[in-house]
Amino acid sequence: MSIRIGIFGYGNLGRGVECAVHQNPDMELVAVFTRRDPSLVKTVFGETPVFSADKVLEFKNSIDVMILCGGSATDLPVQTPSLAENFNVVDSFDTHARIPEHFGNVDKAAKASGKTAIISVGWDPGLFSLNHLYAASILPEGKNYTFWGKGVSQGHSDAIRRISGVVDARQYTVPVPAALEAVRSGSDPELTTRMKHTRECYVVAEEGADLARIENEIKTMPNYFADYDTTVTFISQEELNEKHSGLPHQGFVIRSARTGAENEHNHIIEYSLKLDSNPEFTASVLVAYARAAYKLNSQGNTGCKSVLDIAPAMLSPYSGDELFRYL
Amino acid sequence: MSIRIGIFGYGNLGRGVECAVHQNPDMELVAVFTRRDPSLVKTVFGETPVFSADKVLEFKNSIDVMILCGGSATDLPVQTPSLAENFNVVDSFDTHARIPEHFGNVDKAAKASGKTAIISVGWDPGLFSLNHLYAASILPEGKNYTFWGKGVSQGHSDAIRRISGVVDARQYTVPVPAALEAVRSGSDPELTTRMKHTRECYVVAEEGADLARIENEIKTMPNYFADYDTTVTFISQEELNEKHSGLPHQGFVIRSARTGAENEHNHIIEYSLKLDSNPEFTASVLVAYARAAYKLNSQGNTGCKSVLDIAPAMLSPYSGDELFRYL
Repeated sequence: MSIRIGIFGYGNLGRGVECAVHQNPDMELVAVFTRRDPSLVKTVFGETPVFSADKVLEFKNSIDVMILCGGSATDLPVQTPSLAENFNVVDSFDTHARIPEHFGNVDKAAKASGKTAIISVGWDPGLFSLNHLYAASILPEGKNYTFWGKGVSQGHSDAIRRISGVVDARQYTVPVPAALEAVRSGSDPELTTRMKHTRECYVVAEEGADLARIENEIKTMPNYFADYDTTVTFISQEELNEKHSGLPHQGFVIRSARTGAENEHNHIIEYSLKLDSNPEFTASVLVAYARAAYKLNSQGNTGCKSVLDIAPAMLSPYSGDELFRYL
Repeated sequence: MSIRIGIFGYGNLGRGVECAVHQNPDMELVAVFTRRDPSLVKTVFGETPVFSADKVLEFKNSIDVMILCGGSATDLPVQTPSLAENFNVVDSFDTHARIPEHFGNVDKAAKASGKTAIISVGWDPGLFSLNHLYAASILPEGKNYTFWGKGVSQGHSDAIRRISGVVDARQYTVPVPAALEAVRSGSDPELTTRMKHTRECYVVAEEGADLARIENEIKTMPNYFADYDTTVTFISQEELNEKHSGLPHQGFVIRSARTGAENEHNHIIEYSLKLDSNPEFTASVLVAYARAAYKLNSQGNTGCKSVLDIAPAMLSPYSGDELFRYL
C-alpha cells in the first residue's frame, strides 16, 4: 500500500514536493491544497488534483502525511500545530530562534491527536543540523564551521528589492575560498563574519534612479550586508532573467578536531551539498522525512520530532534485511 | 552518573578507545581486558586498570557498555555474541558479507539477556553506510560512489609482507583525481575498479632478494593488486619507519542525483573524512555509539542494532532542549 501524501501550500517548495513524490514508487500524491482559487493553480503534472485549503479536513482519512510548504514567518507557526490535530505532518520551519517554541506547540497538538510531526526538515536546519551533531558527538574536542554558497539567498534578494528605485535583484552568498581552505587544513582558524563570506548583488534599477544611493543603501544595510564585503552590479532585467533565474545553492559543514593521548592527531569531517535547485532539494528531504513520519506513526510513536530524533533507516523505503546492503 | 566503559581487546583500536573515553566527561573507563599477561600490557594512561579477559564476568555489574576491539576475522564473531549475554556491547565488525549472520547471532544473545548491542560501528561500515542511506533515501534517482584514500590499507600491507623476500611493507590506496572530479561534476560516469583507485607500495626487501620477482608478485596478486595500476618502490627499513609509520586515511561518499519534472536538476551530496589516525577515529565513533547503546538499554530498547537504526540524538551527551542548539 502506498503512503498517501498531501501538499499544503503551493509555491516553489510545493512544486518540488510534487516532483519528489513522483520519484518515490512507495508514495502517491493525493492532493495539493491552496489558499488561492484552485482553478487558477497550474501544477507540474496535469493529473495532480488541487483543492481549496478549506476542504483539507475532508481528507482526514485519505491522506497519511501532510507536507506543509508555507513560509516560516507567518504560515507554519499557525498551520503546523493546526494540521497536526488531524494529520501526520512534516514542515521546513527555519526560523532558528523560534524552533523550541514551534516544537512545543506542534508537540502538544500531535500528542493530543495521536499524530506524528517532524519539524524543521530541509538542509539548514535539517541535514546540516544532524551532520553538526554526528560530528560533534564523535569528535568532542574540535570546532564546527558552516559555509553557505555559492548560492541565491532569497531573503537577501528580497531585502534589496525593498529599496526605493530597485525593480528586481538577485543576491548570491559566496564563501571565501581562503577561509574554506584554512578550515580544511586543520588550522582551526578564528573567522569573523567578513572573513567567511562575501555577497554579490545583481540589481535592476528604475530608469534614471540614483545608482550610487542604491549601492550605498545595500552595502550599509544592517544585519544583511553591513558586516560583509559586498559587490553591487547593475544589470538589465533581460540579463537578470537570462543569467540569474535559477535557485542553485551550495553549503559546507566541516568539523576539525583532535584525538590521541596528547591531541596529536587531527581529523576533518566534511559534509557538502551542491544543488541546482534549492527548493527541489529541500522538497526531496521533506518527502523522505514524510516516510519516516508515516513509519513512526504506524509504530505508535507520536508527538513532535526533529531530524535529530529520527534514525536513518526510517527514511528508507527498504527495511530489515534489505538495509544490510548499506553496511 | 558516568557511563562506565570496558575495553575488550587492546591493540591500536583499544588504545584509541582509551584516549576517546578521556575526551568524554560523561564517561569513565573501568578496565581494559586482554588475553595477554595483564602485567605486560602498557596502556596509554598509567592509571588505566588492566585485567585478564578471563575475569570479565566479575565486572558484570560495574560496566555499562563493553567496547570490543578485536579483529573481525576470528575474534568478534565469537566474542560479541558471547559478551552480549552479560553486557551491552559495541563492535566494529567489518566483514561486509558476513554482517547479516553476525547480526543474527548477536541479536539472539542480546534479546535473551535484555542487553543492547550495536555492531559494525566505525566509518566503513558505519558513517559511510549511513551517509549512503541518507543520500539515497533523499534523492532516489541517482548513483552513489565511494572513494578511499589516500590512506594506509593494513590488509594490503599484510598481503605484501607475506611474499618471500619481503621484510616490511606499507600500502597506500589512492583515489584517481580525475575520477573524483568526474563524479563531482554530475556527469554520472561509469567507473571500473582501475579507474577509481591506484595502489602505492613501499617495500623493504631482504638483502640480495630478487626485486623484479617481488614487484611482479605484488602487481599480479589477484583481488589485492591485479585489477589496479600499482607502483612498487623499494626503500630502507629506516625510511619506512620514518616516513610511513602513521595510519592516516581518507574517504569520500558521493551521491549524484537528479530532481525536477524532467530530471533537469543535478544535486551532489558529498561526505568526506580526512583522518590522521584511522584507529583513533574509528575508536571515537565506537565511543559515541557506546553512549547510544547505554541510552537505548536504559529505555528498554534491547537486541542488536546497526548505525542505521540509531537516531543522531542518541550519540550526544546532550538531550532534550539542549539539542535545539543544533537546529
